[in-house]
Amino acid sequence: MEQLLPKVGRYEFTVEPFHCDFSNHYFLGHLGNAMLNAADYHSDARGYGMSYLNREHKTWVLSRLAIEMEHFPVAYDRIAIETWVDGVMRFFTSRNFAVTDAATGQPYGYGRSVWAMIDTDTRQPCDILALKDGLIEQYLKRDKPCPIAAPGRVKIGTAELTDSKTMRYSDIDINGHVNSVKYIEHVLDLWGLDWHRSHRLRRFEIAYVAESHEGDTLDFFREQAADGEFRVRVAKHGEGTDVCRCTLSFDRQM
Amino acid sequence: MEQLLPKVGRYEFTVEPFHCDFSNHYFLGHLGNAMLNAADYHSDARGYGMSYLNREHKTWVLSRLAIEMEHFPVAYDRIAIETWVDGVMRFFTSRNFAVTDAATGQPYGYGRSVWAMIDTDTRQPCDILALKDGLIEQYLKRDKPCPIAAPGRVKIGTAELTDSKTMRYSDIDINGHVNSVKYIEHVLDLWGLDWHRSHRLRRFEIAYVAESHEGDTLDFFREQAADGEFRVRVAKHGEGTDVCRCTLSFDRQM
Repeated sequence: MEQLLPKVGRYEFTVEPFHCDFSNHYFLGHLGNAMLNAADYHSDARGYGMSYLNREHKTWVLSRLAIEMEHFPVAYDRIAIETWVDGVMRFFTSRNFAVTDAATGQPYGYGRSVWAMIDTDTRQPCDILALKDGLIEQYLKRDKPCPIAAPGRVKIGTAELTDSKTMRYSDIDINGHVNSVKYIEHVLDLWGLDWHRSHRLRRFEIAYVAESHEGDTLDFFREQAADGEFRVRVAKHGEGTDVCRCTLSFDRQM
Repeated sequence: MEQLLPKVGRYEFTVEPFHCDFSNHYFLGHLGNAMLNAADYHSDARGYGMSYLNREHKTWVLSRLAIEMEHFPVAYDRIAIETWVDGVMRFFTSRNFAVTDAATGQPYGYGRSVWAMIDTDTRQPCDILALKDGLIEQYLKRDKPCPIAAPGRVKIGTAELTDSKTMRYSDIDINGHVNSVKYIEHVLDLWGLDWHRSHRLRRFEIAYVAESHEGDTLDFFREQAADGEFRVRVAKHGEGTDVCRCTLSFDRQM
């Protein structure tokens, strides 16, 4: 029987100056990357990470991600990302994140994510509870607070075509499809510097619907739901298949 | 009198899985980022970094960069970047890099760069030798080998328009213009996955000519100089002003 590790993993990162935007705040895409890296380290050390799954012809697939920030760290800040699994069902597991100041523990913000496990040969979902006799259930941590809303269904009405981009070499990750956080970057690029200067992103939520690949041209449709509240639908040009759907909440900067 | 630090700075980085390409090798753009971060840490600790210069209304500007790799690290590798200043003149300083396996010291590759210092109010070059009574000269390290050619003048003939991209929020850094390594990403995107699958990038050289900003549409002109040897000119659409010029050398993969 393997020795169990702590349920919560904690990983420190430095906010590199070249990972910050024009206002010196950490790019949400880079923060998302750091969260996915923390998830990877956490699951790997506990025996159900990518390196184990890949040998079994299985992989984790990110299904939904919500990030909500009180404020963003700036260049040279040392941050800690805590991550833990707070729910598991047959076909989905939910993983939470807390982003804190590494020295003081003060929270910058939180994340919630939903993952599926698929068979890389058949692309069909796998039974997560069957993995190593239910190993993940032993790591369930339900009592640690994550005070943001879970990511939900994103309904989009009559959004307007705002941009189109063709996916290239630098968008593609080891899985051969467009990297999950690259969508975040491309979506945030729908707003110009003037907007980002006068508004602070508070919450970003993304639901992944289908994979996209090199050479796919993606259409970005945007609609405004309320003051500072937007929805974005990303679809494959021509086919019209949805690739992902996002909601964004901005606060006006004083 | 300040206590002098070692002339060579050494900084360790983990190659994050989400900073790797489809073939699991470190993206050159992310490696370039790590090198610039190392340069920043090195100069900052020695009293002539951005945080000091910015108070004096001055800043470093990267003028040329060459990176030449024997092979690229892969996900989870722990690398060390060594950096040192090997030459200083009134208006330019040259800084070298060695990228090694953090545990064994085996080299992955090297970098050479040329920097100018400018006054951020007038945008005019400053006398580097006058900085803190010639402080940088005390950190000159000429005898550490950096066995790659220095970046030189890039001459481009009749290159063909290959792509155009408009610069967005995520391209812009704290200086308010397009981040130096973002050009590397955009240039490497001129080649598709098929090319990157059958060729390994050996050397990338870039000369920065002018700044570009959010909303600028950049035209990418490419020409083939020899087998696996390319030149790329990046120019502002409409104006035709050159922004940067690159040379790339690829080896065919067996």
